Amino acid sequence: MIAALPADVERALAATAGRGFSHLFLVACGGSLSIMMAGKYFADRHSGTLACDIYNADEFVCRDPRRLGPDALVILCSQTGTTKETVRAAKHARERGATTIGMTLDQTSPLARTADRAVAYQASYTTGKAIDSACSNYGVLYMLLAGLIDARENAGLTADLLRSLSHLQPAIDRAHRTYESRFQAFVPGFARRDAIYTLASGASYGAAYSYAICVLMEMQRYDSQPIHANEFFHGPFEVVDKDAAFIVMLGLDETRRLAERARDFLFKYGTRENILVLDGAELDLTGMADRIKPYLAPLVFFDTLWRFAYRLADLRGRPMLDGRRYMKKLTDY
Amino acid sequence: MIAALPADVERALAATAGRGFSHLFLVACGGSLSIMMAGKYFADRHSGTLACDIYNADEFVCRDPRRLGPDALVILCSQTGTTKETVRAAKHARERGATTIGMTLDQTSPLARTADRAVAYQASYTTGKAIDSACSNYGVLYMLLAGLIDARENAGLTADLLRSLSHLQPAIDRAHRTYESRFQAFVPGFARRDAIYTLASGASYGAAYSYAICVLMEMQRYDSQPIHANEFFHGPFEVVDKDAAFIVMLGLDETRRLAERARDFLFKYGTRENILVLDGAELDLTGMADRIKPYLAPLVFFDTLWRFAYRLADLRGRPMLDGRRYMKKLTDY
Repeated sequence: MIAALPADVERALAATAGRGFSHLFLVACGGSLSIMMAGKYFADRHSGTLACDIYNADEFVCRDPRRLGPDALVILCSQTGTTKETVRAAKHARERGATTIGMTLDQTSPLARTADRAVAYQASYTTGKAIDSACSNYGVLYMLLAGLIDARENAGLTADLLRSLSHLQPAIDRAHRTYESRFQAFVPGFARRDAIYTLASGASYGAAYSYAICVLMEMQRYDSQPIHANEFFHGPFEVVDKDAAFIVMLGLDETRRLAERARDFLFKYGTRENILVLDGAELDLTGMADRIKPYLAPLVFFDTLWRFAYRLADLRGRPMLDGRRYMKKLTDY
Repeated sequence: MIAALPADVERALAATAGRGFSHLFLVACGGSLSIMMAGKYFADRHSGTLACDIYNADEFVCRDPRRLGPDALVILCSQTGTTKETVRAAKHARERGATTIGMTLDQTSPLARTADRAVAYQASYTTGKAIDSACSNYGVLYMLLAGLIDARENAGLTADLLRSLSHLQPAIDRAHRTYESRFQAFVPGFARRDAIYTLASGASYGAAYSYAICVLMEMQRYDSQPIHANEFFHGPFEVVDKDAAFIVMLGLDETRRLAERARDFLFKYGTRENILVLDGAELDLTGMADRIKPYLAPLVFFDTLWRFAYRLADLRGRPMLDGRRYMKKLTDY
């Protein structure tokens, strides 16, 4: 059981204590930006006093929103802490008088050194080590947000969150077993395709975003797009035919019916064998608080879908990380 | 020359006068949501007092952000005024005590009747009539935002905006001539593809969004995605090869260098014949105020790209509106 917030999260929160921030900016790039989408959902649902914006880090610097100033708290995230756009964004925010917290794996990295406070998280993907997902980027972001909102609005979120995070890794381990045979059934058909779309809403949209752009496109060169479950009906659904391939994430948050509606359409006008559905309702989330489950379901989806990607990679003959041609290989862009 | 705001815009603004809104919500679906993205850029750049969120209408209703209440102004948009998610969102916002303005073509439509105030705009696409783009969805949204910000922060935006909008339609007409031969050169290659991506940043991102999901996907069944110009480098760029097809919009706002960087990468690792670039700097925007140009460039891009789509449609043998199989044809989803 996780009994308390990690010391660096506590220190970061202490540095924000008593500050009447009116605005929260969540800033990052790519996969790190995707977790901010769930973070905003959390803030939108639980804070009546904090306005919250998400930006890609370079967009944030150039757009330079007028509300960025001493009343703003900026949380940034970069796995390596070297993403140059994100480091620049931290510097920019400080110059505007904002308070900055940098989340990164490496506490000696440029982001950690640039932000007012650095907070560590863990990742199995880059390190190859098994981790407790409670300490992942999502987990630590939620801790910061829950602590921040509790201090201002006495919402009691932190206790529920910590209890729920204690039960996250076992839930993920169970989900791997749940999905194993389903993934096996979908891999051959999905491996030979050119395009696979992901679809989600609410707190799960970020997981769909990251899986489309950082996994399917980046690591397996599929044509892809993360489609918002209701935006689907305002254009994208016209590409659906019996051959279209979709990965649908049915979350547990208040927007669930949006994704259910899209799933029903896909089942009707597509082919069930081409529609891979991950449903939060079929997960065993024993021990988690009901109001926290919606925020942890996307971690389960994303973590299990990594295994699916590795299976696709095997059949496509393209290694996951080493198969990239530009990222971490070129330096001149 | 447009000398004053339209009467319905004035009336809507008068209804907001003296109200200390802290939060602005921009709510719609699909193509109507895309204009809100530029609207948020405008608000972010010019208002130091209004927090601004954009949501898909159904996401907005279900997510039900805690800051939605009497201190919020909600601007909604639906072409026909019948989009059921958007009408529901207007109703929901009113129930939460917010003030609502509904933008629509039809002042007798459900959205017009549900919102506190209705504001008309014009569209050539649905009506087939030639319009002055000053009175388009983008134009009217900017009028509302400029009026709102001027009343609170004395920014002098409205005068600059009206003068600039007066010069918009001639600029679009000139752009059609500028792009004619370029479009002709790109049509044969683009018509036979399966996937075309759009790419933009800042105030132009919405135009890239709408073109990808409402034109390429919806009307021509391409695989597509609107890619943010910096997010491009954090995943999507791995799909780029000599055969990849992109439409790049180089805007005139503060984020321009993001799209320039992506364009340079595409030129280097793709093939110039497959990279259609629309550059705001090559447009003749005579008469417009410099600080307004960035917001009108995406209208020029989008309007001219409609012609490109019709040419693709001819070669693909798929009519633009009538070629859709689900939208406006099915009623049971």
